[in-house]
Amino acid sequence: MSAQQQSQSAKKPQTAITPTRAEDFPAWYQAVIRAADMAENSPVRGCMIIKPYGFAIWEHIQDILGGMIKDVGVENAYFPLLIPLSFIAKEAEHIDGFATECAVVTHHRLEKGPDGGLIPASPLSEPFVIRPTSETIIGEALSNWVRSYRDLPMKLNQWCNVMRWEMRPRMFLRTSEFLWQEGHNCFETAEDGNEDARKMLDVYATFLEDALAIPVIRGEKTPEERFPGAIATYTVEAMMQDGKALQAGTSHDLGQTFSRSANIRFQGRDGGEHLAWTTSWGMSTRTIGGLIMVHADDDGLIMPPKIAPYHVSIIPVVKADNEDRVVAYAKALEQDLKAAGFRVKCDVRDDRPSNKMWESIKKGVPVRVEVGGNEVDQGTVTAVRRDLGRESKQTLDKSAFVAQLGGMLDDMHKALYARAKAFRDERIFDVETLDEMDAFFGDESKFGFVRMDAALLADPKFAELKKKYAVTPRCLPFADNGAKAIIGKSY
Amino acid sequence: MSAQQQSQSAKKPQTAITPTRAEDFPAWYQAVIRAADMAENSPVRGCMIIKPYGFAIWEHIQDILGGMIKDVGVENAYFPLLIPLSFIAKEAEHIDGFATECAVVTHHRLEKGPDGGLIPASPLSEPFVIRPTSETIIGEALSNWVRSYRDLPMKLNQWCNVMRWEMRPRMFLRTSEFLWQEGHNCFETAEDGNEDARKMLDVYATFLEDALAIPVIRGEKTPEERFPGAIATYTVEAMMQDGKALQAGTSHDLGQTFSRSANIRFQGRDGGEHLAWTTSWGMSTRTIGGLIMVHADDDGLIMPPKIAPYHVSIIPVVKADNEDRVVAYAKALEQDLKAAGFRVKCDVRDDRPSNKMWESIKKGVPVRVEVGGNEVDQGTVTAVRRDLGRESKQTLDKSAFVAQLGGMLDDMHKALYARAKAFRDERIFDVETLDEMDAFFGDESKFGFVRMDAALLADPKFAELKKKYAVTPRCLPFADNGAKAIIGKSY
Repeated sequence: MSAQQQSQSAKKPQTAITPTRAEDFPAWYQAVIRAADMAENSPVRGCMIIKPYGFAIWEHIQDILGGMIKDVGVENAYFPLLIPLSFIAKEAEHIDGFATECAVVTHHRLEKGPDGGLIPASPLSEPFVIRPTSETIIGEALSNWVRSYRDLPMKLNQWCNVMRWEMRPRMFLRTSEFLWQEGHNCFETAEDGNEDARKMLDVYATFLEDALAIPVIRGEKTPEERFPGAIATYTVEAMMQDGKALQAGTSHDLGQTFSRSANIRFQGRDGGEHLAWTTSWGMSTRTIGGLIMVHADDDGLIMPPKIAPYHVSIIPVVKADNEDRVVAYAKALEQDLKAAGFRVKCDVRDDRPSNKMWESIKKGVPVRVEVGGNEVDQGTVTAVRRDLGRESKQTLDKSAFVAQLGGMLDDMHKALYARAKAFRDERIFDVETLDEMDAFFGDESKFGFVRMDAALLADPKFAELKKKYAVTPRCLPFADNGAKAIIGKSY
Repeated sequence: MSAQQQSQSAKKPQTAITPTRAEDFPAWYQAVIRAADMAENSPVRGCMIIKPYGFAIWEHIQDILGGMIKDVGVENAYFPLLIPLSFIAKEAEHIDGFATECAVVTHHRLEKGPDGGLIPASPLSEPFVIRPTSETIIGEALSNWVRSYRDLPMKLNQWCNVMRWEMRPRMFLRTSEFLWQEGHNCFETAEDGNEDARKMLDVYATFLEDALAIPVIRGEKTPEERFPGAIATYTVEAMMQDGKALQAGTSHDLGQTFSRSANIRFQGRDGGEHLAWTTSWGMSTRTIGGLIMVHADDDGLIMPPKIAPYHVSIIPVVKADNEDRVVAYAKALEQDLKAAGFRVKCDVRDDRPSNKMWESIKKGVPVRVEVGGNEVDQGTVTAVRRDLGRESKQTLDKSAFVAQLGGMLDDMHKALYARAKAFRDERIFDVETLDEMDAFFGDESKFGFVRMDAALLADPKFAELKKKYAVTPRCLPFADNGAKAIIGKSY
């Protein structure tokens, strides 16, 4: 290594992920996913394969968020994947701006073609669309199920795959097929519907903060940013480490728009017939993209403990003369931790300990434990917290470690949340005028959100700046009672 | 009511389900599903809507079976819904008999047509098929992921929706879209693959017997009944109450057939390149159909306790002067039972107690509890077990009931299993010759399975009888070491 190279490497410490966040944030993002073995692109354009490590995160999200959704009285169900084209057409009559990029099923058989290859056969009399969302098919069902005010509220959720053809896919953030939950609730009064839309947003906010350690801004979308057909769209917005916003969950007060197009009517307490009031709300595998962009660093993923596939990785550091003893000690520790309710990976593969350590780091396992001859002799473990790195390295009695691990994980959750919140709060800039907004987004050294008087959104100059910088009003925060708007770039 | 009518109703007791099993088994089956509010047909031909009560059963199946699958070291992942047509074509070159009835996606956009309606637009250069199973797309991934014997075994499972166009759909049993889990495991040796296929069959058998109280016959399919491409297909066969068989789960030893078509190669311990040995295994929402046809009676569903959406329904029997006290007592009982870990439905809706009781019966809730003024005064509950009915009615101290409920549910599981096993065992008929088989299936008063020497399957007369009675060899039971065959009609 030349002196110059040495000096460069002194300036730039080795990182597990190249490029770094500062060098190329989008490329860093893809590299983190690859390094953690979470997912990969598939041979199907725009669709990803979610590998076991990535899918385990989604399973924990389903488990925790799913429980919260049930706790507020919503029941899970399952509706068909395919939507008749006539349902979409009917919706299109009532709602402007519905999506047209969707997968269309036109045949229901394959047969051998003239050249011996397979070709589509048996054309359908009416084509189907693979659900881009299930409003229409669930609306049709609700129109049959809801008869009287006694049937209300009716609250349904489904966890499923949906499809929207994507021209510029990015793993987790924007894929043609993605996984989500979609809730569709139905009420007797306008007030009940609105209250529900706000309540489901609170569920999302609580989930994101308590389970994923992602601080969010709760607010309402401006009319232009609403879901087509909604009378109000509520959103939770999170800031990524490049200063862009991610809409991490939305909840829509649909008023009577969808009950009108789906004909959801009930006999009211007054004996008359009424249109129901509906809401819908969804959270998807995008959230995993947000998780990465909020918490990961230049060494890879950092997993919030509550949804981490593993809380702890145990790495035996063996020598020729102590392999059996060290491995036995590591496995006993694994059993102790599992018995205490932790998710543990004891990495006994035939590989170098340093490789195993880097894998644990890149996968963001919250606590890494190394055990070697010294630990075995002294009945200790050496533990490192992923978010704090080497500086947090400590050697503890084995039993003390098992007893303290829950507290360490709680501390890590709080630290991740506090770090993300401080990062975000430092990057929300209050401006008084549109000129100040122009100056902020025009300055390449600055990034983050702008907060300003919501009245400025009506100024024609705002529309110009919006286009110039490709920014949008992310929301009118509840905290400011609609008086302020948050503006930013977004995913 | 006339004397004649009275005499008729004496002969035929009122049942909650009409027709009864004896009158019309297929219509009874549909009526049970409707009466329990489990599912209904959708506007999408051949596809069903799984309603909350039906979906809760599937969630418990996923929970228990999913845990068992993870316990044997399989990891969950998620692969794309769409399969490129070229993948299916490649498989068709290697494997005869693959399914051609599948949904074909040919366009990725909708646009307004000349008459203002929506029409498919943007044709795809290569059509996609909605996965009828994921062998090909998972095989493609495994061909990239498996490099060396060190990567093996690799064991993957996904819970997902699949689609096979059905011309004669029946809810749960045969629907164009259905939910399932499909496992795809990959091994270094032929022995490892075969051992795995048998192990996963054992997982299914244990699950069906321990969680669903469905007794099964474990065995191997004859070569004609194998999954296309498999070198062995193992199956668990259950007998329904009409004497027909339901294949409740299958596990395939695929040998090197799929690794050859998907090119899954690895560097072996000898340094040379080898084709991997793969297995696949699946269980679907059909299982819920089996559950109904094994356990339900002429009053509706009977839920095996381990996967019952509710273990207990509590029905307050109120009078004008005690409503508050009775409802408060019922709700306190609900809390006690929930605290003890039971799933409880306390039915406080504004409806007649008799309607609530019938609903509990039709939904097959294992234990129904009635509480009225007497129970409140005496601190008791009156409990009825669904499978035993009125005769099992007993009044117990409230705290004794909470303490004994776990035991009652265990007893009920055992009783359901024993009843189904006795029913089945009485309807397996050993025959010595094909003439005896002919006589059995030709006698309309008899129904069930025939068991006979497996060598008789090779007799040309067997092929005739198979066609004549629409029966198939269900399996060669492991219990007879392949010497015997079980023959029956099937779903």
